[in-house]
Amino acid sequence: MTLKLGVIGCGAIGREHIRRCSKVLQGAEVIAVSDINAQGARDVVNSLGLNAEIYADGMDVINAPQVDAILVTSWDPTHEAFTLAAVAAGKYVFCEKPLAMSAEGCRRIVDAEMTQGKRLVQVGFMRPYDSGYQALKKVIDRGDIGELLMLHCAHRNQSVAENYTTDMAITNTLIHELDVLRWLTDDDYKTVQVVYPRTTTKSHSGLKDPQIVLFETQKGIRIDVEIFVNCSYGYDIQCEVVGEDGIARLPEPSSIQLRKEARLANTILTDWKDRFIDAYDVELQAFINDVKADRLTGPSAWDGFAASVAADACLRAQQSAAIEPVSMPPRPSFYGN
Amino acid sequence: MTLKLGVIGCGAIGREHIRRCSKVLQGAEVIAVSDINAQGARDVVNSLGLNAEIYADGMDVINAPQVDAILVTSWDPTHEAFTLAAVAAGKYVFCEKPLAMSAEGCRRIVDAEMTQGKRLVQVGFMRPYDSGYQALKKVIDRGDIGELLMLHCAHRNQSVAENYTTDMAITNTLIHELDVLRWLTDDDYKTVQVVYPRTTTKSHSGLKDPQIVLFETQKGIRIDVEIFVNCSYGYDIQCEVVGEDGIARLPEPSSIQLRKEARLANTILTDWKDRFIDAYDVELQAFINDVKADRLTGPSAWDGFAASVAADACLRAQQSAAIEPVSMPPRPSFYGN
Amino acid sequence: MTLKLGVIGCGAIGREHIRRCSKVLQGAEVIAVSDINAQGARDVVNSLGLNAEIYADGMDVINAPQVDAILVTSWDPTHEAFTLAAVAAGKYVFCEKPLAMSAEGCRRIVDAEMTQGKRLVQVGFMRPYDSGYQALKKVIDRGDIGELLMLHCAHRNQSVAENYTTDMAITNTLIHELDVLRWLTDDDYKTVQVVYPRTTTKSHSGLKDPQIVLFETQKGIRIDVEIFVNCSYGYDIQCEVVGEDGIARLPEPSSIQLRKEARLANTILTDWKDRFIDAYDVELQAFINDVKADRLTGPSAWDGFAASVAADACLRAQQSAAIEPVSMPPRPSFYGN
Amino acid sequence: MTLKLGVIGCGAIGREHIRRCSKVLQGAEVIAVSDINAQGARDVVNSLGLNAEIYADGMDVINAPQVDAILVTSWDPTHEAFTLAAVAAGKYVFCEKPLAMSAEGCRRIVDAEMTQGKRLVQVGFMRPYDSGYQALKKVIDRGDIGELLMLHCAHRNQSVAENYTTDMAITNTLIHELDVLRWLTDDDYKTVQVVYPRTTTKSHSGLKDPQIVLFETQKGIRIDVEIFVNCSYGYDIQCEVVGEDGIARLPEPSSIQLRKEARLANTILTDWKDRFIDAYDVELQAFINDVKADRLTGPSAWDGFAASVAADACLRAQQSAAIEPVSMPPRPSFYGN
Repeated sequence: MTLKLGVIGCGAIGREHIRRCSKVLQGAEVIAVSDINAQGARDVVNSLGLNAEIYADGMDVINAPQVDAILVTSWDPTHEAFTLAAVAAGKYVFCEKPLAMSAEGCRRIVDAEMTQGKRLVQVGFMRPYDSGYQALKKVIDRGDIGELLMLHCAHRNQSVAENYTTDMAITNTLIHELDVLRWLTDDDYKTVQVVYPRTTTKSHSGLKDPQIVLFETQKGIRIDVEIFVNCSYGYDIQCEVVGEDGIARLPEPSSIQLRKEARLANTILTDWKDRFIDAYDVELQAFINDVKADRLTGPSAWDGFAASVAADACLRAQQSAAIEPVSMPPRPSFYGN
Repeated sequence: MTLKLGVIGCGAIGREHIRRCSKVLQGAEVIAVSDINAQGARDVVNSLGLNAEIYADGMDVINAPQVDAILVTSWDPTHEAFTLAAVAAGKYVFCEKPLAMSAEGCRRIVDAEMTQGKRLVQVGFMRPYDSGYQALKKVIDRGDIGELLMLHCAHRNQSVAENYTTDMAITNTLIHELDVLRWLTDDDYKTVQVVYPRTTTKSHSGLKDPQIVLFETQKGIRIDVEIFVNCSYGYDIQCEVVGEDGIARLPEPSSIQLRKEARLANTILTDWKDRFIDAYDVELQAFINDVKADRLTGPSAWDGFAASVAADACLRAQQSAAIEPVSMPPRPSFYGN
Repeated sequence: MTLKLGVIGCGAIGREHIRRCSKVLQGAEVIAVSDINAQGARDVVNSLGLNAEIYADGMDVINAPQVDAILVTSWDPTHEAFTLAAVAAGKYVFCEKPLAMSAEGCRRIVDAEMTQGKRLVQVGFMRPYDSGYQALKKVIDRGDIGELLMLHCAHRNQSVAENYTTDMAITNTLIHELDVLRWLTDDDYKTVQVVYPRTTTKSHSGLKDPQIVLFETQKGIRIDVEIFVNCSYGYDIQCEVVGEDGIARLPEPSSIQLRKEARLANTILTDWKDRFIDAYDVELQAFINDVKADRLTGPSAWDGFAASVAADACLRAQQSAAIEPVSMPPRPSFYGN
Repeated sequence: MTLKLGVIGCGAIGREHIRRCSKVLQGAEVIAVSDINAQGARDVVNSLGLNAEIYADGMDVINAPQVDAILVTSWDPTHEAFTLAAVAAGKYVFCEKPLAMSAEGCRRIVDAEMTQGKRLVQVGFMRPYDSGYQALKKVIDRGDIGELLMLHCAHRNQSVAENYTTDMAITNTLIHELDVLRWLTDDDYKTVQVVYPRTTTKSHSGLKDPQIVLFETQKGIRIDVEIFVNCSYGYDIQCEVVGEDGIARLPEPSSIQLRKEARLANTILTDWKDRFIDAYDVELQAFINDVKADRLTGPSAWDGFAASVAADACLRAQQSAAIEPVSMPPRPSFYGN
C-alpha cells in the first residue's frame, strides 16, 4: 500500500524531499503539492515527471481527501498554521524545523495534538537518523560507558554569509544540537550560559564568532558546545560523551586515508549538505514507515517545543552573560516516559 | 514505470534480494519467483506479503511475458543455463556469482550475449558498489596518487567451517578481490603465484591458511593479496594502493571510538554480512535503474569471465608453486575500451 | 666542566632526580645531599654508588662552597625557605613545584630574585619539556593555526586515593595545566569559573569529581579544562587548540596498534609516571645546560607565582560558583616581555 | 668509572657518534681519534672542545693502552681490518654497518671473535633500539598476537640521488630490514625472491624502483618488503606483523594532528635522519653500558654475518628472478640459542 503524500512548499528543501519520496524511498508517492509561487510548484512536478496535482493553497493540500499525510516545507512563519491544520484534519504531518516561530507556537501544536488524542506530528530534526549518532546512542544505551557525566561538542562551519547574525548561532545552528543532545542523553536542560571567546578576524563585524554554550541538565550532566561558523577549515561536527566507565566519540565521516606530500591525511567535508545527506533519507523513510504502521517514533511536537524553549533560554543567555534557567514543564505522559 | 522482476532461486541470497527489491529499493516489483523447492518459494512470497506468481521451473519465469528482467540466485551449477536462457529471451539478467562453473561456461555466456548484440548480463560482484571502494576508485581515477605501481590487500575472516578447503580460498574468497582489483586498476592479470606461510594452528587439518597470492598485471602493477580465513580477530578487508605520487587506503568501516579499560579502540566487524550490506542495496538499485535506462554499466559477463580465468590460474598456482600465466584473450570492443 | 649539584630532600622525587643527574644526564654530578631523615639520604647515596657528602641540614648543602647549584625536592612547606636561601647565596636553584605554599610566598621569591639582580630560580614544571607539548607549541608559534581563540583540555586519572580532596583537583592536578597553558598561549588568565557535573559514583564521598574549570585570558581566549581523577579508563591528558585557521591537538602517546578480539586498539597509559618520564630528563638536562651557560630559560619564579595566583582564584571559584577575577600584576621587564 | 673510547673515522657518522658520546650520553669519553684526513680529525676535536689525542693510523688508536673500546666509523672497506685488529687486541668494538664488504669478511670476524673466546663486536644496526620496534618486539614476545605467520613491510624514501643503483636497494636500504626482521621474528631466512613492479617515472634510468622482496623463514613465516626509494611523499617505514591471534603494527612517528584546509592531517617525515635519531643515542648508550658491564647484548658479529649472507642471496634473486636459497650455517652456541 503506497502512502499518498501532499507537500506544502516547493523551495529548496521541499524540492529535495519531493525528489527523495519519489525517486529514492519506498512506499510513498507525492500526489499533491502547493507553493506560494505556483510556477515553482509546476516546475518541480514537471522536472521530476510526477503525477501530482498542484494546489494554490496549502490548506487545500491538507484537506484533499486522497492525501494521507503532509510534508510542511514552506516558509518558516507558515509552519505552525499548516501543522495545526493537519492535526485538526487528523492527518500525519512531517514539519521541517522550526515547528513554529516561538515556544508558544510549538506549545499550541503540542496542545492541539494532545487534544486530538494521538501523535500526528514529526519535526524535521534529522541528526537522530545519522548512522554516527545512532551508533553513539547505541553505545550509551547499552551502558558501555556507564552513566553520562559530560559532553564536549562542537559545530563548525567553514564560513557564513554576511546576513548571519549572532542570534542565528542559536536559532539556525545550535538548534540541531539542542535536539540531538536531549535525545542522546535522554535528559532535559536545566540552565544555560553563553561565553564569547575573542572573535575570529574572519567573522564580519556584528557577528560574535565563536561562541561557547554551557548547559547543565536536569540530571546534572554538563554539556559544552562550541559554535564556530567561520572556522575556515571545514564543516565539522564533534561530539564526545564522557561516562563513568569510558568515553565515546562520534565517528569522523568516512574518507580515504592518503599519504601524499609529507602528510597522512583524511579529507574533511566543507559542504554541510554532504554531512547528513543519508540521514535525510533515513528520516523520511522512517516517517513513511511509521505512518503506515500508524505509530510515530521520531522527533515529536514535544521535542520541537523543548528545543524551542531551550533556544529561547540560550538567546537570553547570549544577552545577559548570566546563567539562565531553561523552564521546561514536565513531559506529559502522552509523549512517553 | 515499475520494473517487473522474476527471481529464480529462493534460498538465503534469493530471499534477501527479493526483500531488497520489494521493501527497500525503488522502481521494481517482484512478480514471479521459482525454486526447486516449491514450498520454499511460497514461504518467501507469503512472509514478505508479495503479489507474485510462483513457478515450478525457472525457465518459465524467464519466459513469462509480463516479466521484464531476471535475477538468478539459484544453485550455482544452474546459473549458466538460466543466464543463457535469459539472454536468448532478450531479457536483462542479474546473475549472482559465479556466472558459471568454469571459464568456458562464462565464455559461452559472453559469446551468446555478443551474438545477441547487446549487454544483457550483470554479474553479482557487489564490491564496486561499496562506498569505500567507490571513494578509492575516485581518488585513483582523479589521478591523486598518480600511476599505480603496487597494491597490498588482505581478506580476513574470523574463522571458517570444517568443509572449507584450500581451493575455496580462491573460488569463494579471492573471487571478490579478483573482480574488484581489475576494476580498481582498470587492468588485467598477466601472471599469478601462490605462496603458503606456515599454517595457523587455528585452521583444521587439510586447509592451508593463510595463503598469499601474488599478481603481475598487464601494465606491470604488482598485487599481493593475503587470504587468511581463520585470523581469529574479525572480518577485515584491507586495500592499500601505491601510486607514483602517494598512497591511498580503503577506509576502515565507521565505528565509535571508545576510551575504556586502558584502550583507545574501534570495533572491528566479525560478520561478513555487515561489511557490504549497503553495497548489495546499491548494486541492485543500480541494476534496476540501468535496466530502466536500457543500458547496463555494472560488472559484465566479460568481467565474470575474466574473474573465472584468473581464478583458474590461481588454482593452478596453488598446485604448481610456480608463476602461472593468466591467459586472457583481448577484450572485445563490445565490452568497451 | 662538570656541574656540582646539591640535592635537598631524598624522598621519591628527590631520589629520582639524583638518579637522573647521576646515571642518565650529561654534565652534572651530585656531590651533596641532605634529608630530614639522615638514613634515607645515606641509603640513596649508597644504592646509587655516589661519591656525595651527606649533610644534616639543607642550609649546609646550599652553603657548601663546592656546590654549584641546588635541587630542592624536600617537603613542600620547606621549598620557599630553601629557595630563598639559595638565591641569597647567589646559587642557581631548581625547586620542585610548589615553589611556595602561597602566592605571597612565591612573590617573596620573585622579589628576592629581582633584588639579587639575576634569574636564579627554575620551578619544576616539566610539561613544557614534553615532546608533544613542544610540537604543539611549535605549530602555534609558527602561525600554522593563526591566532588562538579557544583551548579544550582534559586531565584524567584512572583513580585517586581516599585522601584526595576537592581542592586538590586545583592544587595537585590543575596546577600543571595552569603553567603549561600560560606557556602555550603566551597569555595570562583574566577570570575563572568552576562548574561541577554530577559526580561519578566511583568517587569517594567528599570528593566532587569531575570538575570543569573555565578560563578567560587577557587576550580573550577561552579555555575549558575537564579534571576527572576517577575516570577509570586510564591516565589521559588532552589538549586541543582552536585557532583562526585550524585546530591542533596534542598527540596521543605512541603505542602499538593492535587488531585483536574484534577491536582495533591502542593502549592507553594508566600510570602517570610513564606519561612524562622523558620530560623529566629533558627538563633537568636543560637546567644543567642553562646553569652552565649562566642563563636560565625554563619556568621562572614568576611562572611559579602566576600559577599560584591562578590556583588561588580557582580555589575561590570552587567555593563561590561565581566568575572570579585572577589578579595578576603586570610582568616585570626583569622576566622578559 | 668513565669508559675511554677511541674513534676511527671522523666523517659524518663518526663526528655524530663522537658528539653523542661526548655531549649526550653518560659514562664515556672520547680520548683518541684518527682519520685518513688528519685535519678532519683535528677539526672535530677542536669544534667539540674535546681532550682527545689524534692519531695518524687507526691501528694506533686500537693499540693505545689507555683506550678501553673502539668505534669504527671509517671508510666501509676498512671496517673488517679495524674490527679484526680490535678483536685481536681483546678490546670491545662497535663497528658501523657494514661489518665487512662480504659475507666471507663477516665470517672472518665471527671466527676471530670465537677464537678470542668472548663477544667483543657490536654492529651498528640501530633499529632494534628504536622505541617503536622495541614496543613491537615486546608485543610479539609477550605472545599478544600468538605465533607469527606473516610480516608486511615497506621502506620508502622520498627520493634518491642519481648514483643510487638497483643493487643498493639491497645493500644500503634493505640491509636494515634484514637485521631488524631477524630480530623481531627470532628466525632466519630460508629463501628469497625479488619481483619488480613497473618502475616509477620519478626514478632515473638504470634504477628499478620500486622492488618487492619476498622471504620465507626457517619457521615458515612469509615476509614481504616493499622498497620504494622514490615514493615522493616522504620517508616512511612500515611493519605489520600478522600472528595467529592478532596483528600488530609499528607506530607512526608521533606528530601533531591538524585540522586545516579541509584536511585532518599528520605530518610525515621527509628526512631519514629524523626517523631514528633517538635510536642512535639509545644504541650507543647501550653499547657503553654493556661494555662497562663486560657483556654485549646488541647486534653481534653473527647478526652482521647473517645480514650479509641474506643480502648476497637478495642480490642473486635480483638477477635470477628465481627463488634463491639463503644458506646460513647453524648459529654457534657461542652466539646464544
